[in-house]
Amino acid sequence: MSGRFISFEGIDGSGKSTQARRLADALRARGHAVTLTREPGGSTGAEEIRRLVLEGDPDRWSAETELLLFTAARRDHLEKTIRPALARGDIVITDRFADSTRIYQGTTRGDLAATVDRLHDLMIGTDPDLTILVDIDPETGLSRARARAGTELRFEDMGLATQTRMRAGFLSLATTHPRFRVIDGARDPESVAADILSATLAHLG
Amino acid sequence: MSGRFISFEGIDGSGKSTQARRLADALRARGHAVTLTREPGGSTGAEEIRRLVLEGDPDRWSAETELLLFTAARRDHLEKTIRPALARGDIVITDRFADSTRIYQGTTRGDLAATVDRLHDLMIGTDPDLTILVDIDPETGLSRARARAGTELRFEDMGLATQTRMRAGFLSLATTHPRFRVIDGARDPESVAADILSATLAHLG
Repeated sequence: MSGRFISFEGIDGSGKSTQARRLADALRARGHAVTLTREPGGSTGAEEIRRLVLEGDPDRWSAETELLLFTAARRDHLEKTIRPALARGDIVITDRFADSTRIYQGTTRGDLAATVDRLHDLMIGTDPDLTILVDIDPETGLSRARARAGTELRFEDMGLATQTRMRAGFLSLATTHPRFRVIDGARDPESVAADILSATLAHLG
Repeated sequence: MSGRFISFEGIDGSGKSTQARRLADALRARGHAVTLTREPGGSTGAEEIRRLVLEGDPDRWSAETELLLFTAARRDHLEKTIRPALARGDIVITDRFADSTRIYQGTTRGDLAATVDRLHDLMIGTDPDLTILVDIDPETGLSRARARAGTELRFEDMGLATQTRMRAGFLSLATTHPRFRVIDGARDPESVAADILSATLAHLG
């Protein structure tokens, strides 16, 4: 079985976190060992960096500093959680990985796309084998995100125009990276989950 | 007056922090506006990152993650403290800058020298105009550092062999970068300060 590193991506309110959990449960029910994780965070050190980035004034970090902090968190997550889990044979499902940085920092904040790619190549150097993009209309996503508003409002608070740009960014990435599967997230959660499980099983072979 | 960005470098116990303060005082006495700062730290955000890196188990971060965190702190320090001070006409004196990373992460931990340079070019892209290397015999430096042992023992605790490698690293950097002035730090503090002030005034012109 090849390519056990799976990421979920999508704009806020797409349902990707719920769907990542459902996929983990479905694979476990089929006898697979699964590590379910998330970004930013996913390891003790990365969670500390996550708190540093997400708390406080949204403008306290420049786009470049924020990019470096997220990359530090990703490096720790990769070393402490993802690689050890893959090494023991687990399927790894992460709620967000480098594609989120490509979209958020690379296109939404500043014009950092080339820098994001070069920093990723230099300090991370790996991408998932399969990426599930849970695609949703930004108005639907935003109303869902607002309905469950928690303490980390930095990104959820960016508004409709930003969510629209990010959706377009994710869809554009999907057209140039064969590891992407675009799943229509606007339907009932059961149908979405069934499509994701089917795409994942086809990938795992 | 050109080249007002000045850094101090040296191994632990070299006296560079004391000498950086003395130089700031001497320049202020001559009527210059001086911003005295330090790394890691030097801005509100960078100090928070400093605490994250320096507290806890010395092995909690890999060399690569630590490099990313220090680079994030440096980017914030540069944006929030150094560039604004230079823009208003201050002389900026920083106790450590990127050369410390070149030596600590680039030669002491892991074999990251090329990565350190590429990351610096990508995310920082600037170096001091003048670098004062306070050079000292590692045995003398280590006994001084231990005599004032504070709460941040991570780097001071590295031992004589490491301090010897780092001293050689700094001296090697000094031979290839014309911005360096190597000052013998083993003498009485007044003589060291006089040499540093003289070298600085010659540089400032």
